[in-house]
Amino acid sequence: MLDPFIHEIRVTWGDCDPARIAYTARLPWFALDAINAWWEAHLGGDGWYQLELDRNIGTPFVHLSMDFRAPVTPRHRLMCEVWPSRLGETSITFSMLARQDGTVCFEGTFTCVFVIADQFKSQRPPADLREIIAPLVRSV
Amino acid sequence: MLDPFIHEIRVTWGDCDPARIAYTARLPWFALDAINAWWEAHLGGDGWYQLELDRNIGTPFVHLSMDFRAPVTPRHRLMCEVWPSRLGETSITFSMLARQDGTVCFEGTFTCVFVIADQFKSQRPPADLREIIAPLVRSV
Amino acid sequence: MLDPFIHEIRVTWGDCDPARIAYTARLPWFALDAINAWWEAHLGGDGWYQLELDRNIGTPFVHLSMDFRAPVTPRHRLMCEVWPSRLGETSITFSMLARQDGTVCFEGTFTCVFVIADQFKSQRPPADLREIIAPLVRSV
Amino acid sequence: MLDPFIHEIRVTWGDCDPARIAYTARLPWFALDAINAWWEAHLGGDGWYQLELDRNIGTPFVHLSMDFRAPVTPRHRLMCEVWPSRLGETSITFSMLARQDGTVCFEGTFTCVFVIADQFKSQRPPADLREIIAPLVRSV
Repeated sequence: MLDPFIHEIRVTWGDCDPARIAYTARLPWFALDAINAWWEAHLGGDGWYQLELDRNIGTPFVHLSMDFRAPVTPRHRLMCEVWPSRLGETSITFSMLARQDGTVCFEGTFTCVFVIADQFKSQRPPADLREIIAPLVRSV
Repeated sequence: MLDPFIHEIRVTWGDCDPARIAYTARLPWFALDAINAWWEAHLGGDGWYQLELDRNIGTPFVHLSMDFRAPVTPRHRLMCEVWPSRLGETSITFSMLARQDGTVCFEGTFTCVFVIADQFKSQRPPADLREIIAPLVRSV
Repeated sequence: MLDPFIHEIRVTWGDCDPARIAYTARLPWFALDAINAWWEAHLGGDGWYQLELDRNIGTPFVHLSMDFRAPVTPRHRLMCEVWPSRLGETSITFSMLARQDGTVCFEGTFTCVFVIADQFKSQRPPADLREIIAPLVRSV
Repeated sequence: MLDPFIHEIRVTWGDCDPARIAYTARLPWFALDAINAWWEAHLGGDGWYQLELDRNIGTPFVHLSMDFRAPVTPRHRLMCEVWPSRLGETSITFSMLARQDGTVCFEGTFTCVFVIADQFKSQRPPADLREIIAPLVRSV
């Protein structure tokens, strides 16, 4: 059993709307921050920026789906659990459970494709990435 | 046949990431801007802000799902077609097709529930809202 | 006397914080949107994106200063008047007055330098830009 | 000599524009995050959100001024040093030095006024706040 990867987000005043909860459009932003942090944690500090600029690998999103279960507020840190739930030939799907103080606030799935960054052309992920990702894939 | 409602978005430099296309997390933001604009267009200028503050009606999101078909850039305006695709007892689903220069860039569905804003408690939409929305519902 | 250039911004629910006014950090964002729109209006549709990608001209900011006079809300469109207030050898300063319903909400000055984009090295603006900008410079 | 307060920001891909550096309009956002974090650190976890909702104290900004010295990128964490540089009768000014890998990226000053939040009316800060802030004020 692997330790879950959890990315902590400091939700602030500026993330909230007049209903005094985080604005819905901030939540996909938080989710993407958590996915980028997953890459950084598993690639020795390299996130999307380094993958694109240093290795010419892009991972654009083709799909995202999110269910919002409870409001997100600045009262607690937002703990985003992220894991790869499917690794295809040229794609990767991440799943996410985001909690505050133990309560699930949202969950989601996010699918990206691997591309040659400067050609925006689909490719298989390099072997070293596949070797890092494959053992971490779990469906739930 | 009704005229489609289309909200125009000016995509700029600041919306783009180092891949020189709009950052994925900006796209749900654009989508929500378009849904808010739909309310403004159909409620005589009132969007979420006025619904919440003046009428104590909130419409928090419970679900969103988006498919990204083509990159969004500042080369063209982003034309977001929005329509209500389902009106439930206490919920409303919007569908969206966003195009640039005739090409579909993304599509999505977004479900909100009607709440008494200051209680964050589910309610049926008031009759006047239902009368405005109901004739505009179409499944595709 | 020249017609002022005014960029209109649709302030929404998502721009507002729990105090029910636009979050302070959104206002520099709006200001930059207005400056980019100034370029688009005066360069035949080209903003920062086209300047950088098509002409290898960057205009990074070296300074900004803003005074906030009145809250910004979604009750009115935000009308941002923008003009170049100084054109130096390698820099340009923009001034701004942003109003809602006739009331000044904020004012500011913003200084950018012209650079060769792919070298991030200071340069004089090309003659065609200088010719467009110079007649529009006014100190107040 | 007091320890400086430094707020660490994780700059990511999504903060960057096509010039591959953090978009200028993100930098005031980062600065405000750092000021909010300063409050949290000095008020036992309470930031703007708790001040406003739990204590009816607002601190809206009346001025900000920033000088940008070097580009901000995702290559290093952004270390924002924040301190109160002036405490007036009804206002507070914060100063900031933001560095990456030892290089100053931007500096700025930010002035807020204390208000009774639900009246948006100027007030003196409560004695307990003044006692916390006063010993930390330094001009540089």
